[in-house]
Amino acid sequence: MNAYQPQPEASRHILESVLRASEQLTALPAFPDFDAELLQQVLEEAGKFVGEVVAPLNRSGDETGAQWAAGVVTMPPGFRESYQAFWQAGWPSLAGAVDDGGQGLPTVVEAVLHEMLNAANHGWTMAPGLLHGAAECIRHHASAELKDRYLPRLVSGEWLATMCLTEPHAGSDLGLVRTKATPLADGRFALSGTKIFISGGEHDLTDNIVHLVLARLPDAPPGPRGLSLFLVPKFEPDGTRSAVHCERIEEKMGIHASPTCVMRFDEATASLVGEPGKGLNAMFVMMNAARLLVGLQGIGLLDAAWQKANAYAQERRQMRAPGSASKAGQADVIALHPAIQRILATQRAWIDAGRVIAYRTAIELDLQKHHPDATRRETAARWCSLVTPVLKSAWTDQAFTGASACLQVFGGHGYVREWGIEQIVRDARVAMIYEGTNEIQAIDLLVRKVLPDGGTALSALLTELATELGDSPEAERTRQAMTRFAQFTTEHLLAATRAPGASPELPFWLADDYLRALAMLLMAWAWSRVAAAPQASGPRWTDAHTGFWRWVWPEFDTRMAIMGTSLNAA
Amino acid sequence: MNAYQPQPEASRHILESVLRASEQLTALPAFPDFDAELLQQVLEEAGKFVGEVVAPLNRSGDETGAQWAAGVVTMPPGFRESYQAFWQAGWPSLAGAVDDGGQGLPTVVEAVLHEMLNAANHGWTMAPGLLHGAAECIRHHASAELKDRYLPRLVSGEWLATMCLTEPHAGSDLGLVRTKATPLADGRFALSGTKIFISGGEHDLTDNIVHLVLARLPDAPPGPRGLSLFLVPKFEPDGTRSAVHCERIEEKMGIHASPTCVMRFDEATASLVGEPGKGLNAMFVMMNAARLLVGLQGIGLLDAAWQKANAYAQERRQMRAPGSASKAGQADVIALHPAIQRILATQRAWIDAGRVIAYRTAIELDLQKHHPDATRRETAARWCSLVTPVLKSAWTDQAFTGASACLQVFGGHGYVREWGIEQIVRDARVAMIYEGTNEIQAIDLLVRKVLPDGGTALSALLTELATELGDSPEAERTRQAMTRFAQFTTEHLLAATRAPGASPELPFWLADDYLRALAMLLMAWAWSRVAAAPQASGPRWTDAHTGFWRWVWPEFDTRMAIMGTSLNAA
Repeated sequence: MNAYQPQPEASRHILESVLRASEQLTALPAFPDFDAELLQQVLEEAGKFVGEVVAPLNRSGDETGAQWAAGVVTMPPGFRESYQAFWQAGWPSLAGAVDDGGQGLPTVVEAVLHEMLNAANHGWTMAPGLLHGAAECIRHHASAELKDRYLPRLVSGEWLATMCLTEPHAGSDLGLVRTKATPLADGRFALSGTKIFISGGEHDLTDNIVHLVLARLPDAPPGPRGLSLFLVPKFEPDGTRSAVHCERIEEKMGIHASPTCVMRFDEATASLVGEPGKGLNAMFVMMNAARLLVGLQGIGLLDAAWQKANAYAQERRQMRAPGSASKAGQADVIALHPAIQRILATQRAWIDAGRVIAYRTAIELDLQKHHPDATRRETAARWCSLVTPVLKSAWTDQAFTGASACLQVFGGHGYVREWGIEQIVRDARVAMIYEGTNEIQAIDLLVRKVLPDGGTALSALLTELATELGDSPEAERTRQAMTRFAQFTTEHLLAATRAPGASPELPFWLADDYLRALAMLLMAWAWSRVAAAPQASGPRWTDAHTGFWRWVWPEFDTRMAIMGTSLNAA
Repeated sequence: MNAYQPQPEASRHILESVLRASEQLTALPAFPDFDAELLQQVLEEAGKFVGEVVAPLNRSGDETGAQWAAGVVTMPPGFRESYQAFWQAGWPSLAGAVDDGGQGLPTVVEAVLHEMLNAANHGWTMAPGLLHGAAECIRHHASAELKDRYLPRLVSGEWLATMCLTEPHAGSDLGLVRTKATPLADGRFALSGTKIFISGGEHDLTDNIVHLVLARLPDAPPGPRGLSLFLVPKFEPDGTRSAVHCERIEEKMGIHASPTCVMRFDEATASLVGEPGKGLNAMFVMMNAARLLVGLQGIGLLDAAWQKANAYAQERRQMRAPGSASKAGQADVIALHPAIQRILATQRAWIDAGRVIAYRTAIELDLQKHHPDATRRETAARWCSLVTPVLKSAWTDQAFTGASACLQVFGGHGYVREWGIEQIVRDARVAMIYEGTNEIQAIDLLVRKVLPDGGTALSALLTELATELGDSPEAERTRQAMTRFAQFTTEHLLAATRAPGASPELPFWLADDYLRALAMLLMAWAWSRVAAAPQASGPRWTDAHTGFWRWVWPEFDTRMAIMGTSLNAA
């Protein structure tokens, strides 16, 4: 019913009181003009824009959806106008490099903007969601000519971009991509093949669309090392329409406002981006930033669901709450019922811990790039490498199950469209799949990142977290759990995987539990930071903190138990 | 894509090898003509009808949906014809009393039929889902005249029925119902008010619809004891249309083929059913049977999701599985990947344990009614009272989260409509809400059933389960956990709730965890029964059994830990 209202003040509390964001970022030479006041102003303005322009289009975007007819995709009413207002106001360029026409603000500012945008309207936000990554990809890998032509307009958001990776037989396994690129006389290529699940492959939001496409050169080896990256614009600079067309759009469970396109390339003229055979590298440079944004989608959607459920719980009256003094035939607001309080406090515990972890990750992304000290840059890189898959997986899982819990607060009213809560559940489901399924995040964490260096980086991350915990009983409990987790990793798990005759499957059986256990440790760290922050106050924060320890944290022991059993079974 | 295919042989294995169903039921004087051969025949014929007639309408039912226009509801194409074939073939009357024109078969036969129907087409099955309960309600409470007029046609399914309970302000709290019934000169009543969420309130499946309506007489006290039950037919025997109309149908997340109606009664002529002020009693007599059917919806939907995911996992190739001998550039079927195997084995563990528990509950419902020995009838009543809320809550939760896990097997293909898996997720969500929300099931179990008798019935149930466990190490582990749970109940929990100054909220904080812990114990019992059964065989059963202990059971300790913390916090 009522649209999501951004609350930039809550984000600013986490950024400044908990994480001392502007203090850290202002110290970097990369952000000479940035300070706490600017951060506050930008967040407030962003909150206004999102609340007034983007949020009101969420419901109609779901109901009307993007419409396909004869290759043309029409976006829902209001989408083109609001997107035009969005880029013209400069919102896409917040964190873009000044040299490319961007505003040069820290990544974390863009992160909070995207959290609000996704909470307000997930379908709408799919369109600019890939913009920053595409711009960075072109910035780092494209020729000077391509950069001149495309970079400023992608940084500004005047044009939008796609990532054309998936094919019908090649989803998680991009090594199976078959789209072909044949050299042309002028140094360009003729690109042919069919790509699916292309978000924003066709639409009427912008006058041009820039496609980044994975394809295979004629002499390329099979597998992922045979992939190169190409650029195909919808319109060439001379106005020629490229030979790329949208064959249809998918009917989906949610995000109906975002056209998920089947794109056919029929000898489309393409330019190589980066070196031949290095296509995946060029795209995966941006992976941590992209996965951070998906994690923020989860956080934003869960916050939107919480807002709705909380408002409903304060108004809806059903039954007397236990111990209530209301008379027979009267009823209390359901916010007084323990089952409802538990749902709300649990989701709040996930949302605010998620913000602490996500905002910290955004800060670390900038420290990794811009800190003068190489050791600090390495520490930051370690954070981003290990924490990002946890954030993406655990918080998109929670967006779905937590939004479903918020739906439950509405009873039967949650299952009908009227209140808008079921849309959040449907929209949120996709984030568990794209940008690497949540199972792949878990494998990425354990198999690709933790085990290969013998758990060294993981142990160092836990040490770093432990030093920030403070002195409460909860901090002590967290410290012990971190020690247990690190010992499990470096002693039991590594030994088991390296034992003679060990099954190569072993770490794959444990990966999901390993990621979830680390998510619990990160949440415990986050709540200790929130509790220790100055000016933390009010039942919203304390109820969520208590709720975390009571209802969320016990999963840590469960996951450790499951992993123990799996090791013994190996 | 491919519709659900019933597999009556798997259900028969559980019924006969695990539960010795026909042996127990044949011994009852109520079922003189029933035997194992008849059971097998009926299940096979039911499987054929469901697979050939009902399952193919699932997808189109979702896409077309029930349509409302000027008070008339048109069901999706094929629905009227298939429903007419359904009742004319005698399927609704399987378990109806012979005196009323039913076939007098045991409840468990109807239970398996409904599991298959729901798996095949949840929206379609909503229509006959309330039939048996409405018939039983009329049978036990209505006057001879009403019985003569309505009972045979409800038992046969020629006419369908509704339960008109909910009002906009009265959902879980029926004590707030305001619909009024004013006496007329002929002994009948004029009924006025608006009811919402009325499944099948209007449709074109049958020539008449019988509404059972909760309303308040003029002199009724406030609260639930002021409610009486009334019958309003859509058409009177003389063909007069009653003053009850469908104002609109809801747009919902799922079960689009089932019209969820807003019904307006404008001084509709109504007959009293049962005694004034006993309206809730008349409806709640059927509660265990109705909740069993909703639990079976969960089991059926999860089985349908598993079928789809399993078939896809056997065909879809992505990446080499760990330890695979496939060459670079080739890929294995995803069924070989541990993450996929875990999802499939976990859902199978829930489905088959759910069947054991649900079928046993259906058998106990008949033992409760028909066993010659009063003590055995009491044992059966205890089972139904304690197990039914657990089944309804835990298995409808799992239908939603497990169907979502099955969707994940499809990756991006699961989020689009094409494969039909996202429909199951949307459809399944409602079962966590209706027939008493899952939170209310938990309160029903702990606050209304376990605590009032000091845990006596609960302890007796656990003793009964423990004697059936056999002698394996798993059985021993289960026995210990049952002892721990019983001791927690009778010593710690009761003491805490009865301590001077104890908060009346305390058991409400623990109710969800208590129900889930009991669900784990029931599943452990069920898997020990399956493992001990003759002819249990094949990886489907053994993988699920292993999966239960490895990935599902650890929740027991988690729930005990959460409850322990909650007691300490009290």
